Amino acid sequence: MSKSEKKEGTASFHCPIPISDYKSVLLAHGSGGKLTNDLIRKMFVPPFRNEQLENLHDGAILPSLNGRQLTISTDSFVVNPIFFPGGDIGSLSVHGTVNDIAMCGAEPLYLSVGLIIEEGFPMDDLWTIILSMEKAAKEAGVQVVTGDTKVVDRGKCDKIFINTTGIGAVWPEMKIGASEIQAGDKIIVSGDIARHGISIMSVREGLEFETVIETDSASLHGLVNAMRKKGEIHALRDPTRGGVSSALNELAEASGYGIQIDEENLPIREQVRGACELLGLDPLYVANEGKLLAFVNSEDADAVLNAMRADPLGKEAAVIGEVVEDHPGLVVLNSRIGGRRVVDMITGEQLPRIC
Amino acid sequence: MSKSEKKEGTASFHCPIPISDYKSVLLAHGSGGKLTNDLIRKMFVPPFRNEQLENLHDGAILPSLNGRQLTISTDSFVVNPIFFPGGDIGSLSVHGTVNDIAMCGAEPLYLSVGLIIEEGFPMDDLWTIILSMEKAAKEAGVQVVTGDTKVVDRGKCDKIFINTTGIGAVWPEMKIGASEIQAGDKIIVSGDIARHGISIMSVREGLEFETVIETDSASLHGLVNAMRKKGEIHALRDPTRGGVSSALNELAEASGYGIQIDEENLPIREQVRGACELLGLDPLYVANEGKLLAFVNSEDADAVLNAMRADPLGKEAAVIGEVVEDHPGLVVLNSRIGGRRVVDMITGEQLPRIC
Repeated sequence: MSKSEKKEGTASFHCPIPISDYKSVLLAHGSGGKLTNDLIRKMFVPPFRNEQLENLHDGAILPSLNGRQLTISTDSFVVNPIFFPGGDIGSLSVHGTVNDIAMCGAEPLYLSVGLIIEEGFPMDDLWTIILSMEKAAKEAGVQVVTGDTKVVDRGKCDKIFINTTGIGAVWPEMKIGASEIQAGDKIIVSGDIARHGISIMSVREGLEFETVIETDSASLHGLVNAMRKKGEIHALRDPTRGGVSSALNELAEASGYGIQIDEENLPIREQVRGACELLGLDPLYVANEGKLLAFVNSEDADAVLNAMRADPLGKEAAVIGEVVEDHPGLVVLNSRIGGRRVVDMITGEQLPRIC
Repeated sequence: MSKSEKKEGTASFHCPIPISDYKSVLLAHGSGGKLTNDLIRKMFVPPFRNEQLENLHDGAILPSLNGRQLTISTDSFVVNPIFFPGGDIGSLSVHGTVNDIAMCGAEPLYLSVGLIIEEGFPMDDLWTIILSMEKAAKEAGVQVVTGDTKVVDRGKCDKIFINTTGIGAVWPEMKIGASEIQAGDKIIVSGDIARHGISIMSVREGLEFETVIETDSASLHGLVNAMRKKGEIHALRDPTRGGVSSALNELAEASGYGIQIDEENLPIREQVRGACELLGLDPLYVANEGKLLAFVNSEDADAVLNAMRADPLGKEAAVIGEVVEDHPGLVVLNSRIGGRRVVDMITGEQLPRIC
């Protein structure tokens, strides 16, 4: 499955462990012995080269954050397929954790990477994924400072799972969280929704569209940095698993306020809307990997929105709703045709292994 | 397999998600929706209760470390079986990462936890594992501050995998690492070796001994804290995967010095030695999860050794060798019968999925 799924042109360099030596990953590559050492020295350290990794210690020792508060976030990625339009499990694992740090109002600085690899996984695919992580980490300006590799016997995991844990330093003047939310706050989404989930689903279901629907997976901390200078942000969320609906429901519940959103203001690409209809999915429940929801002081909303639209990742940003005193804990949608309905949190599993 | 493996009496509290609701983990428990929320609120937050977790945000915001250097270490645990004598994957996942932090000369403070669970995994076993993590974290004095849960379809992982990533603050006066190692340094092991690996193997192979061989899995930072006050420590390693041999080989190579060790000084329990002979294993290659190797300035070795022996986890500590100018990069063992042999790093995989 791996080759056909792979985005063309991603493996721009030859794998440093030649196929003549090891075509695929062996259990011994996870033994902690010579082959593990080989994998780390040849494949994992060079792309992310930095002093911490080169020490080959059990952990990384990092400078103090000069009194800034620390943020930590963890995410395991089990996405299936591992290669998909516009990304792969490697880039996703960097974007996902970088975004979780940014959503805490913090600047992402360091990443740890934990790999669980299935015995027999093609060495070449592993290299493609590592290069993709390298690219995403460089673009995001974060350093991969420590890692761990485990190999499990064939059939005991599905190709590769990646855990990334991020460390960030809180932006000095930022104080965000559900408890900061106020009635009247404007709710802004940074762009079109539901693209990541539909991209994955279309590969899985073998759907063909006029143009390929690519994931929106991207690192959002640059966008947050631009936003925070323009106004008071009370809460940030990236609507990944469970989509916009779950993120809003969590914040409605945690803040004790109601949320209302307007369907007609939700940016959705025509093709994504069509795919959702075809697959019977509500785009509000479909995962995003490069979008954020911001709860912004109403007076600052225009300034923040303008700053977002000046950023390539926020060009299509839109105010989609606001925080209200009514229906505390509930998210209510004003539909295109004038009706109102409660948008609940998802109960079942719409799209398993979307990230 | 789970029930019979489980150590009796570990599930001391009823699982907060009643069997009448969900006997096992569903894909929907990893959806990011209602059931995920349920799992987190009922099962994951209460045992580790702290302000960060209760925020239910994507990450944790922590106080600054007052100018102390930061340490980060990550480890994924895929041990098979998940329940074994003296421990389980939960306690192991806490001890392992706590120790990696301690081996950097740092005080472990916070943990993140990433769970990958197989669809159908018994809810009751999940609860047992969470309680075991709670106990280990409390004993170690570390806080679980953030987490992530993924569920993969049946057959796509083996029961449960756990990633823990730890954050520590470097003990102010400590500066350790391979580059600090000097000729003449005494090498101290904190106790008997090879117990964890043999404990796992004996369960897997169905071996029966007079008494059950329990894992040595334990958190070692208290021991390190006692040691650092008594002398100059140049390097620390916990000999996990690949055993004492791999840890010493890594340090010989990285320091550019030779290492010699005396077989007769290596503490090994009689039963473990017997099991190694039975299974054809060299105890130098067998994993430990509650032992450390310390490279100590020779003049301070006695004081450090005495401090170790006063700690319950260092009672059987022993000087097993020293750093030499000869044979740089090599580990040489003086055998019990007067011979000398090079102890190489392990090439293959002696015991897959030992941690």
